[in-house]
Amino acid sequence: MAAKITVHWLEDSRAQRILWLLEELGLDYEVKRYSRDPKTLLAPKELADVHPLGKSPVVTIVEDGKTLTLAESGAIVEFIVERYGSNLSIPASSSDMQARADYLYWLHWAEGSGMLPLMFSIVFAQLPKQGPWLAKPLLNGVSYGAMSQFVLPRLKENFRFIEQSLAGKDYFAGGKLTGADIMMSFIAEGLESSPLPNDKYPNIFRWYNSMLERTAYKKALEKGGKNDLGRFTR
Amino acid sequence: MAAKITVHWLEDSRAQRILWLLEELGLDYEVKRYSRDPKTLLAPKELADVHPLGKSPVVTIVEDGKTLTLAESGAIVEFIVERYGSNLSIPASSSDMQARADYLYWLHWAEGSGMLPLMFSIVFAQLPKQGPWLAKPLLNGVSYGAMSQFVLPRLKENFRFIEQSLAGKDYFAGGKLTGADIMMSFIAEGLESSPLPNDKYPNIFRWYNSMLERTAYKKALEKGGKNDLGRFTR
Repeated sequence: MAAKITVHWLEDSRAQRILWLLEELGLDYEVKRYSRDPKTLLAPKELADVHPLGKSPVVTIVEDGKTLTLAESGAIVEFIVERYGSNLSIPASSSDMQARADYLYWLHWAEGSGMLPLMFSIVFAQLPKQGPWLAKPLLNGVSYGAMSQFVLPRLKENFRFIEQSLAGKDYFAGGKLTGADIMMSFIAEGLESSPLPNDKYPNIFRWYNSMLERTAYKKALEKGGKNDLGRFTR
Repeated sequence: MAAKITVHWLEDSRAQRILWLLEELGLDYEVKRYSRDPKTLLAPKELADVHPLGKSPVVTIVEDGKTLTLAESGAIVEFIVERYGSNLSIPASSSDMQARADYLYWLHWAEGSGMLPLMFSIVFAQLPKQGPWLAKPLLNGVSYGAMSQFVLPRLKENFRFIEQSLAGKDYFAGGKLTGADIMMSFIAEGLESSPLPNDKYPNIFRWYNSMLERTAYKKALEKGGKNDLGRFTR
């Protein structure tokens, strides 16, 4: 199956990992680049012409004259891996039920449970910046209270759990690189720019640094670019 | 493969849809029930003995002497469907790439993009209730501002998108019931208890009501119970 794949790539977004996936699979693809609105940090309106929700990543796949437009990182990773990725991932019919379960778990966890407290930390960091200046002391107080009582405990719990899950392991599922590692890379980037002390998570950074060393990861960086997620919380 | 499945079911949670899935597949299972802390509305500590993050749903599967503990709704649905669910879902090797893509999209979208603004609406509704009473007028103001400027526009965008996606369709993917419908049912419950006017979404409620009519859905209700998601925002 020869498919023509286009990745609609937004700067500082979940899209970078789709380039990494495609490099790991050795697939040809095109990159269409989009920039964020420098003031709102939101995606530009042009992305809504590609997919109704106007987010990235979105991929367009043309195969045998049919065109598919697919959004949502986890769905893109699963779809591409099972359709074009014979040299990556864990097949559905695996007799090793733990490996298959781990693969599906982290694939869904990254955007489900994993991103939630990270998104809350972004929103509460932005809160004081979005309000009128007279309200800033109050908004700073609300932001501080929400972060310390609600967001940080959940962030810590999540990253402690990842840290323990990676003890003695080189990959998230089945002892080899899968789409689960690719999905979880964005969470590791989130940890780097989170308020948590990075030196508390040696297993996460050991795993993450070994991902950064991969040839495919480096090639993807050349075609896309390094995410600066700190811009959302600074 | 005869597997012994136990569902760790928490009241008013994503766990109810796992019971529905198992009823659709005609699988035997046990339900272990947990109640929320009536004050914090959080899951009880006993769930942390089952899985480190202490959330629900979690399933325990015993198969050929091996025990698997699996959390995260999307992963549970995918795993059970592909391993035990020959009479449901869309196989990985489908030649209909649109149907497979739709299946994976909604399966991931429900807990990724779909739940995010719903969770924000819960947190900003709770905000004034969690602070000291002297700060309540201010917290009400912050909550109102965040809801009207940030949360509600995203909720509306999401539900408008679902509404359009279901136009002329009885199911989310491939013209038949799949795990995608089961995952999306929780989002429909969220709409019911959201601040959005329910009469604006006829396609969503047409689809949702047809799900409620299913025998398996009703059987699952008998074994679990109806979710009251309104308790998180009242």
